[in-house]
This record gives sequence, C-alpha cells and structure tokens, in this order.
Amino acid sequence: MEEQVELVGKAFVDHYYLLFDTNRANLPSLYHPTSMLSFEGQKIQGVEEIARKLTQLPFDHCLHTISTIDSQPSSLPGGIIVFVSGNLQLQGEEHHLRFSQMFHLVPTQEGSFVVQNDIFRLNYG
Amino acid sequence: MEEQVELVGKAFVDHYYLLFDTNRANLPSLYHPTSMLSFEGQKIQGVEEIARKLTQLPFDHCLHTISTIDSQPSSLPGGIIVFVSGNLQLQGEEHHLRFSQMFHLVPTQEGSFVVQNDIFRLNYG
Repeated sequence: MEEQVELVGKAFVDHYYLLFDTNRANLPSLYHPTSMLSFEGQKIQGVEEIARKLTQLPFDHCLHTISTIDSQPSSLPGGIIVFVSGNLQLQGEEHHLRFSQMFHLVPTQEGSFVVQNDIFRLNYG
Repeated sequence: MEEQVELVGKAFVDHYYLLFDTNRANLPSLYHPTSMLSFEGQKIQGVEEIARKLTQLPFDHCLHTISTIDSQPSSLPGGIIVFVSGNLQLQGEEHHLRFSQMFHLVPTQEGSFVVQNDIFRLNYG
C-alpha cells in the first residue's frame, strides 16, 4: 500500500511536469470542476479558471527538474498527498528558480486521479 | 467559508511553530495515532513515533519565521490543507535554513483539529 502510494505520486509528478513543459494546454485535463489552485498566493478554483491561469503564465518555455517527492495517503479513501520540490528554468533566464508544490490527488470512478488541491510557491532567498 | 479556512490555517500555523520553538515536548498533542510525518524524506507514523522524532531532533533551540501560508479546504469534510514556507534559525548557526511544510488538518469530534499528514522539507539551493 505504501509502495503503491509512492509509485502513484512519482508517476503523477513525472506526468504533470512533462505535460507542463511540453504540452501545457493539456494540463487542465488533470483538474476537475471543484479543483483548487493557489499559485503564489492567488486562489483559483475550477478547471476553467485554472486552465486560464496555467495557459496565460508569462513564459512560453520552461523546464522543471524535480529534487524531492514525498507521498502520503490522505484520509480521503484512495486520496494521495504529493509534495514536490525542484527547480524551474525559464527560457532566456540565466538562473533557475526553486519551487515547492503540493497536490492532493483524489481517485476518479474511472480508476484514475484528478488534482483536488494544488498549491505552488517559489522559494525565495 | 473560505475566510474561515484561512483563519484556521493561520491560527494553526501560529500555534504549531510557537509550540515547536518554545515547548516542543507538547507538539505531539497535535497528532493522533494514524498521523503521518515525512521529515526530510524519512517516513514516520503514529503519535509516539512522531513524538520521538520531534523531541530528538539534533538541536535544542530554534526559531521559525513564517513567510507564506496557503490554506485550502481538502475534500475530507472539514479538512484543511495548509502549506507553509519560512526560515528556520538554529541556535549558534549563522545562517538560517529555508523550509517548506504542509499539513493536512482533520477535525476532531471535540471541535478541534489534529494533523493527519505532515511533510517537511528544507529548501536547498
């Protein structure tokens, strides 16, 4: 069970950031109507608003490099909390940015997962 | 509702780090038997094991300074996810450490909250 949680967390993280870096327009497929995103303190709810935010970020190309992944089962049956830290390199920028992000994944009836909670923060200083 | 979530998150964070910095032996009162802690990648479960870890950290005095708090309702009824970033100053150390930490708070029958999930990471970089 615990190993399964780790595997799901790792697979989700790989999939999420690959989509983010290569096909960001498809990221909203991982959210659903009650999903919540806190992006640098801005609160956004619902797949359409989240899609608007993610596709209108002020850069076209970026590359995430993952440093750590911590996954735990949440109290919600089948739910998984995934905590990520890593680096974000923006095209044309010399220095990378450190970030931390957490996802609360909840199972769907189809046997997949959607993002219920998503909190993203850059790590300054 | 949303404002309530923010208030609970802020109050919890203030309480948690004050306890951590001034009365760490009482921190385990915030956990319960199924609580999970991931501390720098080490997975610890249950209030007794978490108590052992927190009270045996290799420093006596520390001071947390909070930079950001993001709170969202989790899908669990009454549950709240709290994401924190800040600085940790250890006694006798010149430089502070950056950290990120998330808590999944679940309501108790007594109208309080306990920590179901706790993930802590230092931010290197």
